[in-house]
Amino acid sequence: MTKKEVLVLEDLLGTNKKIAADIRKQLSQKGILSVNLMSSPGAGKTTLLESIAERLSTVYKMAVIEGDIETERDADRIRRKGIPAWQILTGGACHLEAKMVGRLFPEIPADLDFLFIENVGNLVCPASFDLGENIRCVLLSTPEGDDKPKKYPKAFTTSDWLIVTKTDLVPPLPFDIQKAIREAKEVNPSLQTFTVSALEGKGVDTLVEQLIAALDELRKNDA
Amino acid sequence: MTKKEVLVLEDLLGTNKKIAADIRKQLSQKGILSVNLMSSPGAGKTTLLESIAERLSTVYKMAVIEGDIETERDADRIRRKGIPAWQILTGGACHLEAKMVGRLFPEIPADLDFLFIENVGNLVCPASFDLGENIRCVLLSTPEGDDKPKKYPKAFTTSDWLIVTKTDLVPPLPFDIQKAIREAKEVNPSLQTFTVSALEGKGVDTLVEQLIAALDELRKNDA
Repeated sequence: MTKKEVLVLEDLLGTNKKIAADIRKQLSQKGILSVNLMSSPGAGKTTLLESIAERLSTVYKMAVIEGDIETERDADRIRRKGIPAWQILTGGACHLEAKMVGRLFPEIPADLDFLFIENVGNLVCPASFDLGENIRCVLLSTPEGDDKPKKYPKAFTTSDWLIVTKTDLVPPLPFDIQKAIREAKEVNPSLQTFTVSALEGKGVDTLVEQLIAALDELRKNDA
Repeated sequence: MTKKEVLVLEDLLGTNKKIAADIRKQLSQKGILSVNLMSSPGAGKTTLLESIAERLSTVYKMAVIEGDIETERDADRIRRKGIPAWQILTGGACHLEAKMVGRLFPEIPADLDFLFIENVGNLVCPASFDLGENIRCVLLSTPEGDDKPKKYPKAFTTSDWLIVTKTDLVPPLPFDIQKAIREAKEVNPSLQTFTVSALEGKGVDTLVEQLIAALDELRKNDA
């Protein structure tokens, strides 16, 4: 990168960080837990959210911000579950930024429990942008291969949770779940890890329990 | 984006375009066909290259430039097939740029037939950067879902070929190959399309025939 490019990028990241910190503070004060989901395209973010919604929305109020380059398809899928969803269309941009989330603030109900933010499908760029989340999750789907944590480390080093998705495809897929988790923990020893098959409903209950525990923790700390 | 960000980006893309045009000219003059492979992480770029190498390298000379954020794993896989491979580590950057390819020029043998460039696994950013290729391919693997051409249009609008990979996983995967191809052609009517299972070797012969035809065409035009 040229010096000019570096300066512009630093400026952008610095501004993003400040807006994100403000979002986190405001949401926490309202007792809303925010979760940022990052992954490659097609790793199963929307399907996982549908599966979480089925379990969570009977007791808790949740809403979803969908980040996509084009189409309203993901937000429509979430709305069909009876969950409020806002679609952010980045129009080409490869990641969400905190200011895009901030613009939706006036529309976000104050009595929410959970705000999920589904990032643009991209295992690289979203990792550089804090969206004001309390929990950052990286999803790794089994068809992508178990070598991804070492090849795309930033998404794993900056995340709190790793969720291995589509475990129903192993076997026949030659994905070594233990290897993927081990190598992810080598790049980030504090990662909390989950394995799920949203299609078969496996592992989602455990994930939902941890989400509720994190919400309780947030409200205890902010009380 | 701010005005400053837009200016820096335009500058970067303009410079990249010039370097790419020069690379394309130099390679074409040597009779080398260059192919840029783009896709999400884990869509099967390296496996497809291994499969192409098995068929092509008995008669033709090929080499591979591997773009990754971290690790030499992909270049090592190609080398194990007896194919020269160079690993470009972007160290965090989400795409290859023409200048990175240009730096390898002194090492590229002049008697090559095919130069493949495997881009960083990312369905968004690489689409903005011409690498001096003759053929740009976008790979879409069936586990990613058949909705991706509309959701990530730029990779499809800027490509010459669409290669649907991992067709052996359909069924059980609910990927509608005809829908994916139809929607890809809606965003880019001139796309040439292929379906392959590199694991089962299906469709790769057809792809290799088209690569050889494109090489013949290049040499005829440049003669």
